[in-house]
Amino acid sequence: MRMYDIITQKKRGEALTDEQIRFFTEGYTKGEIPDYQVAALLMAIVLKGMDDRETFVLTDAIAHSGEMLDLSEFGSLTVDKHSTGGVGDKTSLIVAPILASLGAKVAKMSGRGLGHTGGTVDKLESFPGYKTSLTPEEFRAQVGKIGVAVIGQSGNLAPADKKLYALRDVTATVDSIPLITSSIMGKKLAAGSHSIVLDVKCGSGAFMSTPDAAEELARGMVRIGCGAGRNVAALITNMDRPLGYAIGNILEVQEAAEVLAGRGPDDLREVCIALASAMAHLSLGLSREDAEAAVKDALNSGKARAKFVEWIGAQSFGDPLSISYAEHPENFPKAKFSRPVLARESGYILSLDAGAVGLAGVTLGAGRATKEDGIDFSAGILLAKKPGDRVEKGDLLATLLTDREATLAEAEAAVAAAYRYVKERPAEQPLVYKVITKADL
Amino acid sequence: MRMYDIITQKKRGEALTDEQIRFFTEGYTKGEIPDYQVAALLMAIVLKGMDDRETFVLTDAIAHSGEMLDLSEFGSLTVDKHSTGGVGDKTSLIVAPILASLGAKVAKMSGRGLGHTGGTVDKLESFPGYKTSLTPEEFRAQVGKIGVAVIGQSGNLAPADKKLYALRDVTATVDSIPLITSSIMGKKLAAGSHSIVLDVKCGSGAFMSTPDAAEELARGMVRIGCGAGRNVAALITNMDRPLGYAIGNILEVQEAAEVLAGRGPDDLREVCIALASAMAHLSLGLSREDAEAAVKDALNSGKARAKFVEWIGAQSFGDPLSISYAEHPENFPKAKFSRPVLARESGYILSLDAGAVGLAGVTLGAGRATKEDGIDFSAGILLAKKPGDRVEKGDLLATLLTDREATLAEAEAAVAAAYRYVKERPAEQPLVYKVITKADL
Repeated sequence: MRMYDIITQKKRGEALTDEQIRFFTEGYTKGEIPDYQVAALLMAIVLKGMDDRETFVLTDAIAHSGEMLDLSEFGSLTVDKHSTGGVGDKTSLIVAPILASLGAKVAKMSGRGLGHTGGTVDKLESFPGYKTSLTPEEFRAQVGKIGVAVIGQSGNLAPADKKLYALRDVTATVDSIPLITSSIMGKKLAAGSHSIVLDVKCGSGAFMSTPDAAEELARGMVRIGCGAGRNVAALITNMDRPLGYAIGNILEVQEAAEVLAGRGPDDLREVCIALASAMAHLSLGLSREDAEAAVKDALNSGKARAKFVEWIGAQSFGDPLSISYAEHPENFPKAKFSRPVLARESGYILSLDAGAVGLAGVTLGAGRATKEDGIDFSAGILLAKKPGDRVEKGDLLATLLTDREATLAEAEAAVAAAYRYVKERPAEQPLVYKVITKADL
Repeated sequence: MRMYDIITQKKRGEALTDEQIRFFTEGYTKGEIPDYQVAALLMAIVLKGMDDRETFVLTDAIAHSGEMLDLSEFGSLTVDKHSTGGVGDKTSLIVAPILASLGAKVAKMSGRGLGHTGGTVDKLESFPGYKTSLTPEEFRAQVGKIGVAVIGQSGNLAPADKKLYALRDVTATVDSIPLITSSIMGKKLAAGSHSIVLDVKCGSGAFMSTPDAAEELARGMVRIGCGAGRNVAALITNMDRPLGYAIGNILEVQEAAEVLAGRGPDDLREVCIALASAMAHLSLGLSREDAEAAVKDALNSGKARAKFVEWIGAQSFGDPLSISYAEHPENFPKAKFSRPVLARESGYILSLDAGAVGLAGVTLGAGRATKEDGIDFSAGILLAKKPGDRVEKGDLLATLLTDREATLAEAEAAVAAAYRYVKERPAEQPLVYKVITKADL
């Protein structure tokens, strides 16, 4: 088998055989096939596509390229969640303790933020003692005892995806539904949970800009995951605007704590209830209605909030400062500098560009533009107004927070420009466009 | 300027700017842009194309990536010829001395054979004293004195093409009209001749399989060359079958000498007259009719044959054995082993797969499968029958010649299988499909 022939076949728009897909995935992971041949193949895949069988085989090859996490000791109670990435998306911090409080097992690996989207691992590191890497024994023990552990990506998990993603990132070959599907699902299958709920974002702050494109991606991932014997569902949610009002690591932890206490912004609460209900439905065998009732009860009763404190305490090995922040998030350190962003017009807010707001957060120090950058945990943006709100010129739209005073001017201009106004009250957009389960395929 | 954005733009099917094209060509030649990014871009170009302006700029960037040969001392008399590669194509050995005998200046760089197609430089090395590399001074002096010199490719000429071609060769990105055009024309512009005649082959033994595809390539190359201020014409010629009856280095030199003496096979003679007439028309300012008459006179009068001997003598620095072979090609050494290939059926020969015959020649030792292989100059194939001929089962189709007896069986099977038969006499196919000049654009 020759890589040249594999490239030629895909260039002509023909499907690759199972053997060809496993050959290049394994060969590239082992370093036997050079970057330049894989780059040419990836571009041919972006432009000519892959069918469901090819995508399934690529997903499976990626999943099996390294360690497959064995969570079988927890039976079918394990549940994972993946978001395609958004701005202000702190849902993992909320749904993980909800599910743990209901008896499910959330054994989760999360990523770091890069570019305009944040990462759960960065948010958790707002707690000074939180350990984002645990030994396999510590990880399993914590999941068994309190029902939730969230760590960074293991180096042994889906190494093919690490190599392929790094190459896609520098060859402009990220935007391909089969490649995105196999990257996400390859990692999720390797991570071992029996049930998986996917949060596929669409809109200006997301990779997929329309609900239709997001649905195509979502359906493909559910098909692939169910085909691999897992319980998979997907929600298509709105990322035309940031989720909630807080963008930035500590700010998002504080907002998540509000939602866990049964309060918090309506949009964030609604998306979290939808995600957690789907997770409870899949992993605990509850009906959809019972799942939703249980999730709401976990929030309103304080059970989820208590589980959050227990989780942070356990995973920071009892670090008193971390526990104190988990119990009293208002005590987190505050950024040194702040600046208001004021409305430049009067009217209704039509839209708020989530991608632009996310990048302004990076400018302030809340995220990293390159992998090597450091993060200011207290930096970020607190929104005061969101689409649908009425404002008068000069009203407060948002507050910028940072330790790097020099960044304020650029971020202020970017956030102000991210708002669009209209005269009439705009129609409300749904937050959750669709839920796709195995039955919908 | 970022390579990532250049790849993205072409992936979307958008045209690249002049600056973007020069940026990646220069950056890649200097080693500042990695192979994998260029590989992704090349695949996007193969699948999304390039317009005439983009192709022109890429050609110009390739031409200027190294030394530009200055032949201005010869005014507008310089003329070059390029073939897209064929089997049994010994036309350069014939047209170069014809043109020199008419007063034109043929200062030519030629390639070596690789795969099923032969190379002029290999054929010339059949003469034991022939120097395929000359100093710039020797090269110009010989062109000035006798009107013709043919050497191998200079390392300083169009280095961008060398790097790009090597990458295309391993990433399945060879088959793109803009990439082929810029590769060929970039080298030809750098090689400095004022007039250029392109022989674009089509058929089973050529890169372009149909006359229409060949014409698209030919028109593009003529447009680019004329746009760069050169006198360019293209012939589209048949390579469904080998040209002439001889395949293999010494065998082809012997056949070329026959044509130069006013004899030789009709098909080879016809293509050579067409090519040489176009070259004489462009470089000597003769009308097409006068050019063709002058070419035929050069062949029939013995002038071209005498110029050939003079050329080989000069470029072998007076080596007596080389001169003796040039004067009496029948004295060249002969291969140790020969084997007849006999017709397996009776009927008319419909077709003879040029590519398969070329590869059989490689098997016998006449060419190289990899760049490192050596060549047997006496090895090759002498055809006895070609398409249109009537044969009875058991008739001689071809004679195989080699010093490597063990190769005969495989080559015999391949050559026998390359013939296709029909009951009725097949229609004759044209040898020269079309001549494309500036006036035809």
